[in-house]
Amino acid sequence: MKSIFKMCTLGTVALLLSANVQATEENDNAIDYRQNALSVMAWQMGPLGAMAKGDMDYNAEEFQLRANNLAALAGMPWEGFVEGSFRGGEHSVSTGALAKIATNMDDFMGMADDLVVQTTTLAELSNGDDFSAMRKQVGKVGQSCKSCHDAYRGD
Amino acid sequence: MKSIFKMCTLGTVALLLSANVQATEENDNAIDYRQNALSVMAWQMGPLGAMAKGDMDYNAEEFQLRANNLAALAGMPWEGFVEGSFRGGEHSVSTGALAKIATNMDDFMGMADDLVVQTTTLAELSNGDDFSAMRKQVGKVGQSCKSCHDAYRGD
Repeated sequence: MKSIFKMCTLGTVALLLSANVQATEENDNAIDYRQNALSVMAWQMGPLGAMAKGDMDYNAEEFQLRANNLAALAGMPWEGFVEGSFRGGEHSVSTGALAKIATNMDDFMGMADDLVVQTTTLAELSNGDDFSAMRKQVGKVGQSCKSCHDAYRGD
Repeated sequence: MKSIFKMCTLGTVALLLSANVQATEENDNAIDYRQNALSVMAWQMGPLGAMAKGDMDYNAEEFQLRANNLAALAGMPWEGFVEGSFRGGEHSVSTGALAKIATNMDDFMGMADDLVVQTTTLAELSNGDDFSAMRKQVGKVGQSCKSCHDAYRGD
């Protein structure tokens, strides 16, 4: 009887451990995904920032391509911010995503939505020829990134 | 005189080394970028493949979102395939990209263009209601990935 109890306990522990491993793997995948998506956005943003600052000559074709890519990407990373994938959660991949994202999801997603709005505006402006407006809008996109990083990204 | 010569030689070596370090860093960044972009594509492709195979119920809204994301991403990774960033090149990031990409760039980019065409067709189909056509097109997208992997990706 005792050994059956032991076997059941071991079975439960094994099931719980296997559920844990699965949760960890899912969270790791979500973290990898969002970090990859955000890195691709940063790559696209680089030349836009350089052109806006005057560190790189304005090239209408490249500006338009980067701005459109950025707008297309802006909605993608957020599905990777799932419960359990923040600091202190069940995962083995290092993340800067603070635990408080989980308890402030509406605010966090509001910031994500703002990035979509700002990058969409930038993509629209990039089809025209008002470079002064484009430069200002690159600043707004950067500010949108920064607001969220300041609030929800750890060192 | 000899010591001036030595200093010049050391200076040249230092310059060459620093150029090497810069090339390696640029290639590493390009490899990271393209790997990140391809990973984001694989994430978006996952549910499309699962729905096409019947492993996941068809959901029109999700299918359309994934298909449009995939089409938007399909043109992005290729700028990361720069000279020196293939196997045997100057980089410190591991890559599956075979050296022969450099000598077959037109063929490689032709395959990249095919992926853009196939994913754009999938995105267009996803706006309609012909799920049978969508399933077939997911197969064509997968075949486009596979052709390029078979030709140009190492183990």
